[in-house]
Amino acid sequence: MTNMANEIREIAERILPLDEEAMRAAQARLDSLTKPPGSLGKLEAAAAQAAGVTGEAMPDLSRKAVIVMAGDHGVCEEGVSAFPAEVTPQMVLNFLSGGAAVNVLARHAGADVVCVDVGVNADLSHPRLISRKIRRGTANMARGPAMSREEAIAAIRVGYDVVAELAEAGTRVFATGEMGIGNTTPSAAILIALGGLTPEQAVGRGTGIDDERLLHKQRVVERALAVNGADPADPLDVLAKLGGLEIAGLVGVILGAAAHRSLVVVDGFISSAAALVAARLAPACTPYMLASHLSLEQGHRSMLETIGLSPMIHMDMRLGEGTGAVLAFHFLDAAANIMREMATFESAGVSQG
Amino acid sequence: MTNMANEIREIAERILPLDEEAMRAAQARLDSLTKPPGSLGKLEAAAAQAAGVTGEAMPDLSRKAVIVMAGDHGVCEEGVSAFPAEVTPQMVLNFLSGGAAVNVLARHAGADVVCVDVGVNADLSHPRLISRKIRRGTANMARGPAMSREEAIAAIRVGYDVVAELAEAGTRVFATGEMGIGNTTPSAAILIALGGLTPEQAVGRGTGIDDERLLHKQRVVERALAVNGADPADPLDVLAKLGGLEIAGLVGVILGAAAHRSLVVVDGFISSAAALVAARLAPACTPYMLASHLSLEQGHRSMLETIGLSPMIHMDMRLGEGTGAVLAFHFLDAAANIMREMATFESAGVSQG
Repeated sequence: MTNMANEIREIAERILPLDEEAMRAAQARLDSLTKPPGSLGKLEAAAAQAAGVTGEAMPDLSRKAVIVMAGDHGVCEEGVSAFPAEVTPQMVLNFLSGGAAVNVLARHAGADVVCVDVGVNADLSHPRLISRKIRRGTANMARGPAMSREEAIAAIRVGYDVVAELAEAGTRVFATGEMGIGNTTPSAAILIALGGLTPEQAVGRGTGIDDERLLHKQRVVERALAVNGADPADPLDVLAKLGGLEIAGLVGVILGAAAHRSLVVVDGFISSAAALVAARLAPACTPYMLASHLSLEQGHRSMLETIGLSPMIHMDMRLGEGTGAVLAFHFLDAAANIMREMATFESAGVSQG
Repeated sequence: MTNMANEIREIAERILPLDEEAMRAAQARLDSLTKPPGSLGKLEAAAAQAAGVTGEAMPDLSRKAVIVMAGDHGVCEEGVSAFPAEVTPQMVLNFLSGGAAVNVLARHAGADVVCVDVGVNADLSHPRLISRKIRRGTANMARGPAMSREEAIAAIRVGYDVVAELAEAGTRVFATGEMGIGNTTPSAAILIALGGLTPEQAVGRGTGIDDERLLHKQRVVERALAVNGADPADPLDVLAKLGGLEIAGLVGVILGAAAHRSLVVVDGFISSAAALVAARLAPACTPYMLASHLSLEQGHRSMLETIGLSPMIHMDMRLGEGTGAVLAFHFLDAAANIMREMATFESAGVSQG
C-alpha cells in the first residue's frame, strides 16, 4: 500500500508550477492587441494559462483529445439511476461507432475521442477501445468500499498511461469524459466527503430521477458515507471507498496532463469529482485545469468553487461524456487565434486609452 | 412622424410567431437521440428554436454574419470613456482590414463580418464598408436629445435593409455587433428608462474607467435622463433621445432578422440595449433572439432578464464588437450537428430509461 501511494507521490512530484516567463510574454502580447486590456476576459486568461502550462507564449493547441473513461457501479443495485446499468456498455459501443453526443461535438471541435474501458461490467472488444479493465464495476458502496485502495491506484495509473501515450504522439490538450450509469452517486459522495457539503446540497437528479428517487438516492449516499467512514484527509481513501473506476481513471488523466505540461479541460459533475480528488492528491495540478461548463446537476457549482474553478459555459447541460469540455475546445482555439491573428495598437494605428 | 412610426409598425407586422410544428418535429428528433431527454440543455433549446424560427425541423444554419454597426456619441464630450472618440473610425478601419477581435473570432466561426457606418463622426471610405451614415455622431444627450425621432427611424431602417439584403443572398443567422466610443453610456440610459433600474445599477465601467470617472458617468446619465424626459411607454422616444445611431441600427438588424425568419444572436451590453428597444417596439421579435454571453458590464444581467434572455457564455468579456455573439455561433453549429449526426436509441441499440 505504501508502495502504491509512493507511485502517486512520484507522479505528483513530476508536476511543475506554471512557467511565469511564458505567461508574462503572453500577457504582454495580449495587452498590445487592439482591445481594452483584459476585455476578452476568460479568453485572455486561457491564452495566458496555456502559455504557462506549455512554457510557450503561443503554443500550438491544435491536437486535442477527450478521454472517455467507462466504468460500472455496484451502487446501481440500490436503484439510484433513471437508466439501467446495461446502458454503460451500450453507450461505449455508441462512442466507438461515433454516434454519441460527445462524438458529434468532438468532430466539430476537431478533437479525437479516446474511449477506455477501465471497469465496465461486460465483456467489450473493439479495435478502437482501449481495454484496461481493473475490475467489472465497483462493489456497492452502500454496503462497503467501492473498491480497494490498490484498485483505485491502478485505475489512476490507467488514466496517466493513456495521457502519456497520447502526449508522446502529439496531443497537446486533453478533456475529461466519462460513462458509467449511476456515477453521479459516487461523485456526490466524494463532494460530501472532500467538500463538506450535506447530502441535500450534493445529491442531484443525474440523468433525470423524480423527487421520490432523489430522496432515496440521498439516503443511499448517507448510508455509503456511514458504512465506509472514509478519511477526508486521505483523498485516495475517499476515492477508493466512495468513488468509481472511471472517476479514478480521470484522476489519472488530470495528473497525467499536468505532468506532461498539457491543459486539461474538465467536463461536468463527475469529471469535477475526479478533479477535486486530483487537486487534493496533488495541488500543483490545479493550475493545469480549465473548467468548461456549469452542469445543471445540483452541487456542481459548489464542487467547482471548492476546487477554485470558474466555468465558461452555462448551457444547463447534464449529459457528461465530456460534452461540455469539448464545447470549450472552441474557446481554446479562439484564444490561440486571438494571440496569433489580432492586430496590435501599433500595427492598426489605433489610439490607446 | 406618424408616417415614420407607421414604417416601424409595418416591419413589426411582418414578424410571425415561431413555427410550432417545426419545433415539435425538432423536439421529437431530439428526444429520439442517445441521451437523457433534455440533457443537452440550451443546445437542444437552440435546435428547437432554430426550427421554430426557420420553419424547418433541421435548418441549414451554415451561412452566418455578424453585423457591426458603427456610430459616434456626442456625450463623449462629457468625458465618459477611457478611450478618445477618434478610436471609433480607427477601429472601423481595423474591422475592414480584418485585424480586430471580432474578425478573428468570426473567421474561426466561419461567419462574415459586415461593417456599417451608420453614424461615425469621420469621413470613411472602403470597398467593404457599407456607408449609410445618418449623421456624424449623435448630439450630446446630457444637453438635449441624442437625435431626432426621424433619425432614429432612419437608422433602424439601415439595419433592416442590411439584413434584408444579406438574407436575400443566403445568410441564415445574424449576430449583432457594434463600435462606438462612449456607447455604454446611452445603453445604460436606455436600461434605466425602459428597465426601471437606478443609475448605480445600470452604469458600469465600459472599456475601463476608474471609480471617480464611474461616479461622473452616473451623474452624466442622470442629467441626460432629466434633460430629455423620455417617455418609457414610447421606445422610439427613448431610443432617439437617449440612444445612439449604431444602437438604432441594431434595433433594425434584430427586427429585420425576425421579419426574415432568421435567428439573431445578441452580443453584450450595447447590443442588449438594442434588443430591449426592439422587444418593446415589437414583442414578437423576442423569440428570434438568442443571448450569447453575459458581459462583465454592470447591468447586463438585469438587461437580459428584462428581455427574458439567458446567456450561454460566462467569459467575463466586455469588448463588444459582436465578439461574444460570434463565439456562440459555434454552439449553433454544434446544435445543428447534434440534430443531424447523433445516433438514435433505436439505431444504436441503447436501452431507454
